[in-house]
Amino acid sequence: MQQLVAELLQGKKRAAARLISLVENDEPQKRELLKEIYPYTGKAYIVGITGAPGSGKSSLTDRLLQKMRSNGLTVGVIAVDPSSPFSGGAILGDRIRMQDHALDENVFIRSMGTRGSLGGLSRTTREAIQVLDAFGKDIVIVETVGVGQSEVDIVRTADTTLVMLTPAGGDSVQTLKAGIMEIADIFVINKADLPGAEKTETEIKAMLDMKNSNKWRPPVVTTVATINEGIDNLWEALQQHRSYLEESGRLMEIRRQRVRRELTEQVEYLVKNKIWSQVKDTIELNDMVEKILSRRLDPYSAASELLEKIDFYD
Amino acid sequence: MQQLVAELLQGKKRAAARLISLVENDEPQKRELLKEIYPYTGKAYIVGITGAPGSGKSSLTDRLLQKMRSNGLTVGVIAVDPSSPFSGGAILGDRIRMQDHALDENVFIRSMGTRGSLGGLSRTTREAIQVLDAFGKDIVIVETVGVGQSEVDIVRTADTTLVMLTPAGGDSVQTLKAGIMEIADIFVINKADLPGAEKTETEIKAMLDMKNSNKWRPPVVTTVATINEGIDNLWEALQQHRSYLEESGRLMEIRRQRVRRELTEQVEYLVKNKIWSQVKDTIELNDMVEKILSRRLDPYSAASELLEKIDFYD
Repeated sequence: MQQLVAELLQGKKRAAARLISLVENDEPQKRELLKEIYPYTGKAYIVGITGAPGSGKSSLTDRLLQKMRSNGLTVGVIAVDPSSPFSGGAILGDRIRMQDHALDENVFIRSMGTRGSLGGLSRTTREAIQVLDAFGKDIVIVETVGVGQSEVDIVRTADTTLVMLTPAGGDSVQTLKAGIMEIADIFVINKADLPGAEKTETEIKAMLDMKNSNKWRPPVVTTVATINEGIDNLWEALQQHRSYLEESGRLMEIRRQRVRRELTEQVEYLVKNKIWSQVKDTIELNDMVEKILSRRLDPYSAASELLEKIDFYD
Repeated sequence: MQQLVAELLQGKKRAAARLISLVENDEPQKRELLKEIYPYTGKAYIVGITGAPGSGKSSLTDRLLQKMRSNGLTVGVIAVDPSSPFSGGAILGDRIRMQDHALDENVFIRSMGTRGSLGGLSRTTREAIQVLDAFGKDIVIVETVGVGQSEVDIVRTADTTLVMLTPAGGDSVQTLKAGIMEIADIFVINKADLPGAEKTETEIKAMLDMKNSNKWRPPVVTTVATINEGIDNLWEALQQHRSYLEESGRLMEIRRQRVRRELTEQVEYLVKNKIWSQVKDTIELNDMVEKILSRRLDPYSAASELLEKIDFYD
């Protein structure tokens, strides 16, 4: 593993791929690995892209990737599809299109489905980002279908989050209200050559007016990713948001919160391990379960009782 | 609150509604309440209904409800929509249709959206089930849109889970593969008057053949809920599954696992509380966060260090 980490830091693609697999499979060495690469992280800028299925996320990611590359930036892409059981190379669904970049040494593309969700898909995504960060990518794009809470969690790792819509009915502004609206730093109306693009734009802006925040107001950018239209504007909006975050001190604040969350999770992880390594399948636990089942005990009192018997300092 | 619990046990609808709100809002008395009603739970049979949007879940729930009522059973319905911010009475979306039952003293219908997700939507759902169980309902139906992991978690509480599909393309058998397939005890092909119903049925059965399990084989029932077709068959399948669970000892086993999970969660909840009440916003934690931010420390070592300083036995 020592070898793999060394190769990662030297920029070897194969090492990055293998380390992400290791993370995905929740292998025992995972924590040690993440600990080891941690000093080399914190340099990448994380861009999240989310939107309803069919909004053209991978076309847009593709174009944005080109743009970033032409600006001399190295890029990693993690395409997360919580509804797919498959993980692996750059061949998940229309990810095939992105293979144009496969020969570019400075691009790394990885798909993740539920296969890699042993430790939770959003956790695995965060860990894969760490690997690509240590790998030296300037930008890491995390692209995910934006429907449920798990996707919101995934995107929460990003420094800048793009929320994509299309003018066409289904994923109208109304349906976006719950949760997704709040995480957008930039709105992208893709397929803006379809009828209704202006209406969608007006609707988003009306919603933003209602929010009336004195901080960053998410711009609304219209694109037609398939013909590379609007990508320059989008790239500019992205850079503006990044500048805003950096100059206002928000970036540091976001990352501080992220560290705090990470630390929280790690502590809870350790504690859980301690508890269940001591308690799992003991006669006492089984006895409690039977009592609760027959309603002679409730799970709340049982939990307090159990807790008193655990040694946290072994 | 003592009063409210007494009223719940006497069968007062208003008390049930208020206690569910209390649970939804994660009020401080929540744990005490759940502890108090626990001895009165464990009698209700839980039916989960899940399926893609547009598969006709609420029509089917409606019909099934009628069927159960005509068999003299009292029923509670919890309709969970993780994409909706709204919670409350029986007026979420097409829930309006179910208001036919609103005057029936033996039916209780409740909608839950993300508003009630302070403690996590699947947790809140489980707690609401407890309330309706103590309330004396023979059957509690939990109905939810089946798209992501959170919905799978919600339905995991059920004794019998119905997975709904329609013959029409979108939610074909292929897309169901990840996660949903595994939780089905009964498959329902609703809108079976549409073309393709037979093909869908064949596909499901082919998948079931591949699984080749020697336990319960999920039957495939076709329905047209809007005109009450197939509901008798569905009701029969439901009763058969219940008998199977009861006679094989599986029901007890499922509930034992559920208790075990509940106990686990409660212990972890208590521990987390202990940790964060001691550590939150201390100088030490803040100092660690800064060190991690500047990469002088990693979150994994920091977590171990932090853990040693917590008093778990106060």
